[in-house]
Amino acid sequence: MAGNSFGTLYKLTSFGESHGRGIGGIIEGVAPGLVLDMDFIQGELDRRRPGQSRITTPRDESDKVEFISGHMDHVATGTPLAFAVWNKDQRSGDYDNLKDIFRPSHADYTYEAKYGVRDHRGGGRSSARETIARVVAGAVAKLMLRQYGVSIQAYVSQVGMLKLEKDYRELDLSVAESNIVRCPDPVLAEKMVEYIDGIRVNHDSVGGIVTCIIKNAPVGLGDPVFDKLHARLGQAMLSINAVKGFEYGSGFGAAEMLGSQHNDEFYTEGGKVRSRTNNSGGIQGGISNGEDIYFSVAFKPVATILKDQNTVDKSGNEVVMKARGRHDPCVVPRAVPIVEAMAAMVLADCVLINKSYR
Amino acid sequence: MAGNSFGTLYKLTSFGESHGRGIGGIIEGVAPGLVLDMDFIQGELDRRRPGQSRITTPRDESDKVEFISGHMDHVATGTPLAFAVWNKDQRSGDYDNLKDIFRPSHADYTYEAKYGVRDHRGGGRSSARETIARVVAGAVAKLMLRQYGVSIQAYVSQVGMLKLEKDYRELDLSVAESNIVRCPDPVLAEKMVEYIDGIRVNHDSVGGIVTCIIKNAPVGLGDPVFDKLHARLGQAMLSINAVKGFEYGSGFGAAEMLGSQHNDEFYTEGGKVRSRTNNSGGIQGGISNGEDIYFSVAFKPVATILKDQNTVDKSGNEVVMKARGRHDPCVVPRAVPIVEAMAAMVLADCVLINKSYR
Amino acid sequence: MAGNSFGTLYKLTSFGESHGRGIGGIIEGVAPGLVLDMDFIQGELDRRRPGQSRITTPRDESDKVEFISGHMDHVATGTPLAFAVWNKDQRSGDYDNLKDIFRPSHADYTYEAKYGVRDHRGGGRSSARETIARVVAGAVAKLMLRQYGVSIQAYVSQVGMLKLEKDYRELDLSVAESNIVRCPDPVLAEKMVEYIDGIRVNHDSVGGIVTCIIKNAPVGLGDPVFDKLHARLGQAMLSINAVKGFEYGSGFGAAEMLGSQHNDEFYTEGGKVRSRTNNSGGIQGGISNGEDIYFSVAFKPVATILKDQNTVDKSGNEVVMKARGRHDPCVVPRAVPIVEAMAAMVLADCVLINKSYR
Amino acid sequence: MAGNSFGTLYKLTSFGESHGRGIGGIIEGVAPGLVLDMDFIQGELDRRRPGQSRITTPRDESDKVEFISGHMDHVATGTPLAFAVWNKDQRSGDYDNLKDIFRPSHADYTYEAKYGVRDHRGGGRSSARETIARVVAGAVAKLMLRQYGVSIQAYVSQVGMLKLEKDYRELDLSVAESNIVRCPDPVLAEKMVEYIDGIRVNHDSVGGIVTCIIKNAPVGLGDPVFDKLHARLGQAMLSINAVKGFEYGSGFGAAEMLGSQHNDEFYTEGGKVRSRTNNSGGIQGGISNGEDIYFSVAFKPVATILKDQNTVDKSGNEVVMKARGRHDPCVVPRAVPIVEAMAAMVLADCVLINKSYR
Repeated sequence: MAGNSFGTLYKLTSFGESHGRGIGGIIEGVAPGLVLDMDFIQGELDRRRPGQSRITTPRDESDKVEFISGHMDHVATGTPLAFAVWNKDQRSGDYDNLKDIFRPSHADYTYEAKYGVRDHRGGGRSSARETIARVVAGAVAKLMLRQYGVSIQAYVSQVGMLKLEKDYRELDLSVAESNIVRCPDPVLAEKMVEYIDGIRVNHDSVGGIVTCIIKNAPVGLGDPVFDKLHARLGQAMLSINAVKGFEYGSGFGAAEMLGSQHNDEFYTEGGKVRSRTNNSGGIQGGISNGEDIYFSVAFKPVATILKDQNTVDKSGNEVVMKARGRHDPCVVPRAVPIVEAMAAMVLADCVLINKSYR
Repeated sequence: MAGNSFGTLYKLTSFGESHGRGIGGIIEGVAPGLVLDMDFIQGELDRRRPGQSRITTPRDESDKVEFISGHMDHVATGTPLAFAVWNKDQRSGDYDNLKDIFRPSHADYTYEAKYGVRDHRGGGRSSARETIARVVAGAVAKLMLRQYGVSIQAYVSQVGMLKLEKDYRELDLSVAESNIVRCPDPVLAEKMVEYIDGIRVNHDSVGGIVTCIIKNAPVGLGDPVFDKLHARLGQAMLSINAVKGFEYGSGFGAAEMLGSQHNDEFYTEGGKVRSRTNNSGGIQGGISNGEDIYFSVAFKPVATILKDQNTVDKSGNEVVMKARGRHDPCVVPRAVPIVEAMAAMVLADCVLINKSYR
Repeated sequence: MAGNSFGTLYKLTSFGESHGRGIGGIIEGVAPGLVLDMDFIQGELDRRRPGQSRITTPRDESDKVEFISGHMDHVATGTPLAFAVWNKDQRSGDYDNLKDIFRPSHADYTYEAKYGVRDHRGGGRSSARETIARVVAGAVAKLMLRQYGVSIQAYVSQVGMLKLEKDYRELDLSVAESNIVRCPDPVLAEKMVEYIDGIRVNHDSVGGIVTCIIKNAPVGLGDPVFDKLHARLGQAMLSINAVKGFEYGSGFGAAEMLGSQHNDEFYTEGGKVRSRTNNSGGIQGGISNGEDIYFSVAFKPVATILKDQNTVDKSGNEVVMKARGRHDPCVVPRAVPIVEAMAAMVLADCVLINKSYR
Repeated sequence: MAGNSFGTLYKLTSFGESHGRGIGGIIEGVAPGLVLDMDFIQGELDRRRPGQSRITTPRDESDKVEFISGHMDHVATGTPLAFAVWNKDQRSGDYDNLKDIFRPSHADYTYEAKYGVRDHRGGGRSSARETIARVVAGAVAKLMLRQYGVSIQAYVSQVGMLKLEKDYRELDLSVAESNIVRCPDPVLAEKMVEYIDGIRVNHDSVGGIVTCIIKNAPVGLGDPVFDKLHARLGQAMLSINAVKGFEYGSGFGAAEMLGSQHNDEFYTEGGKVRSRTNNSGGIQGGISNGEDIYFSVAFKPVATILKDQNTVDKSGNEVVMKARGRHDPCVVPRAVPIVEAMAAMVLADCVLINKSYR
């Protein structure tokens, strides 16, 4: 089966299901000698974990990562870095009622149709629990990118109708991590939390948008034609569960603009080529130009809600699926570290590719 | 250099520059025995060609495709199908003035920074002329998909502020190809043409949106985790020149929705599992579910405009770049066949991947 | 780091070091629904394990495989099949004396030079213990190939000067597994055992040859040009620790032959195209022709011997390395299941590739 | 269809058939700025060309290479380097008699069985004419390797029973190119030429061996586990038409040796780690150690001979195939540049891979 690997030189091959033994992967391309800062890596996982606040699912998963190979005393040796997060919360009996039912807007039906067999427990391979592997591999990528001074920060810019209208340059992004919804505008953050709390009480879910800013990326990342930097970022983001759209730089707004407005004039600053505006989003011809890279990722409301829903079962009978279990009323706060992780993997890969021909 | 190949089993590796000998590629994965319908393939190229109407660039490129290998009497043998479109309009002297200048919002600066050397003539490898290879490979993919009854149709849904508000299900999509802007609403199409004409006269350019509808795709296309069908479509579309955003199904609008609104209820129709709504855009868990697949692609206004612009040269001097040459006032009408071609390549690849494990 | 994956559609990505937590891998391409016959898989590992007889290393490693993901109750779901064999015999203190020494004809020096850091314990990633992952993935491949009736059997055809001169068609290959040296000629087998026992007592090691016979492979496996079936088998075999050569069909002997002797005449038998001789080794133009596929793999004497040896340390000082520890006097008996495993992986991959375009 | 690409970062994707429009390919990974020395590249092709001496096929193919993209004035720009050698000698009518016949020990039957359709003219894709693409890509790789001081030289070491018994270190390898059989021992060379001439007159063919010596390869080339340097060289060589075996360093002879004889003792020379013997063939643990890399490649007698042969046709009838046409009595002299080319591609790829992680 295809689809389990991401990257060319910095590469994650992931494995695992929601309610199997665990989630993990193999990372290739880790620089020999890199120190695996376990506090940092575990910290990234903690940013993703369920049960971290009252606006996320109350499932409590401690999610401790173990590195199985590829290091000695947490110094990378350059061999494949295998890791696992062993599943603790394996109450698979909870899912017996879903064994033969296709949950609306989940992957149950399509997996069954494609493979003829599926792990029904909590979505199996299609569960968002799979993103654990991404966060670990992204954390290691961040450690590699640190030496280039690259910083990657994502935040929540929209929840339902509540939109952060300010440009990221007007904001103190470091504020984002100080509130549970991860929005850098404290006033709006409070409204978002309150709103999500209402959604939760109402047993519903709501969508949102995550925006990501990459600073200090070296000039020259990304490859022409099919592997343009934004195309790779796009695939990376769209591969995250529940994502419905991706835009970078001027994004969908570009459709309404004139070339004379949209073009970013070049000038020189301190011997460097710079652009006065940045509708390009730091990427021209698919290659980073040294300006900030920024993009947004739209998430749908998660499909699991605590309301009865009409659907069909495996035999084609129309049935009512009873509400049950625990759910995330809004996924975007927990998606923030996942977006960052995917961005970090793309950038680390581009850095390695660039090294290869110079 | 990475980035010149697209696909796993149905795979295009492309080559060529705007003003070199030509543009071409090698297609792997073509079914042995497939009849290469040259009228159809050439017809697809003609839909892309410059000079096809008064709202496209007046450059006249006839763009005839030649298949070099992989067939006998235009029946594919299963060996690599190499092809080329030889460049005719090679007035490279036209570009001497651009040799040392970085055009705003073009790839001149990033290529120079990345490679230390670049073909400045008409953008070289970064020219949209490269999409010729995509259209040829997409046309062959369409021929392969025909036997499955899959249809792929794209159209222009926005030019500047002019938006097609109607849902695609209310439209007769076949109308799109009957007007030069390729919009299926004849009234709006006329307005768009008029608007673009004004842009052209004003030496400017404008952005737009292309929407694409795929009908009759088999259930089961796409792969879990990183190669979700929409993630692959996203990369495919974002890799097209001038693209700034991609959304599928409910898209960015999903951010504002509740789960109870967004979830697509399943029901049974004629023994088939169907969904009553299609916010999923025909894709669940990254795998096609048999409903229509639909997505939109945002294009920026093309960077070449006939106005003087401030920029810098290779030595870092700030200069005024004089307006000169020919340009596309709005790229979206010509982008329609390119969007379709990329979608066809993704689907053909997914079809082949699916065959491999069943 | 490259080199950890093998295969295109049936694909193993392996991880692990000799004295780390364990050895394992991720297998992609396993047919959904395949029953993982654990007795068979464990049995294959047991054929490889150290300590299985008096002519192998006395290290006792029980090597139990655990499947971590990709199955429910040992039925494959089509998702990545991750597995691990956890290391038991981790007396890494045993290796402190080797921390700064480059053992002759081992990978110590080249790893150090390449990575600047290395796991010195028992060879780390370069240890033959890594082949555990191959045997597991090969065993699963064998289960997939069973439904096509393909059989793969390897045996020892040479140990030192002791050569099996008979053609495989004159032998009862099933005899091979009934003696500890895995030679299908019982008389020669006894001589080999005796000879190896002498080598062991003398603290030395000796090389040998493994021959492999594949029967009932479908016509059409292998791909033209670079991925010819024998080229892929060759890479597979040469990637096994200690291998120095590979030949198939007439092999090196072909250099002395005339075309009129070597060509395999076709004839028809029961509606099938057959060849009267099989110098082609079942492969023509890189593609299987339905005749038996056979090839031989030459192994050097293992580099670990219990004699003092001259070498250098990390600082470049010439030193005498003292004999110590346990070793395999002759690796070929234990290499038999590894050769089979690699062959099975190649064939399973070719089978999946073939499905994709028909 | 798989199998048309070779390499990861330095990568050739080839196309073309014996009697189609031409043979060519796309090379990726060429260093931007590399000067394409056309005299050198064409010279390499001339070493491969038919009709170069009385012991090769009298077919006269001038085989001029044209670079189609990826350079400006023969300076590589880093974009894909496409090239073609257009076929001149396209007398395809010559092959009408072979349209429905399976030539013994050719790929006719296996291609027909695999694809259901085939280009019968001169073997189509399976023709050794395909190696033109390898020689061009290898020549460019050699230009890249020059800056590292790496030299690659192959020569003929056996023709039929005539074997060069001397070690390569006793020979002046530069002599090889001064005789038409490319053997560095002038006396033996003369015997070989005479012998091949007799074979030719007798309408037969004979096999042989090519040996290749690589000097000054940097330490550290090759990757662990599956992509060991010798495993990649092995696949490369085995993928050449008519190759039946590959061995490196001590090769098949290692099977007869004791560890105490075979191990290469390390010592220090001028601050460098060296080995006193080189049974390892310059490769330890799959990674180059700075000593000479050497290997041998066995070629079968070419299948085309000018004698009547029994075979079957497409319908399964047993027929006598009449002798006809032109043929190479011994392929090894022309194989020398092909072996070198494949080695150069492998090394260039390893050099690029190594750059990526340091």
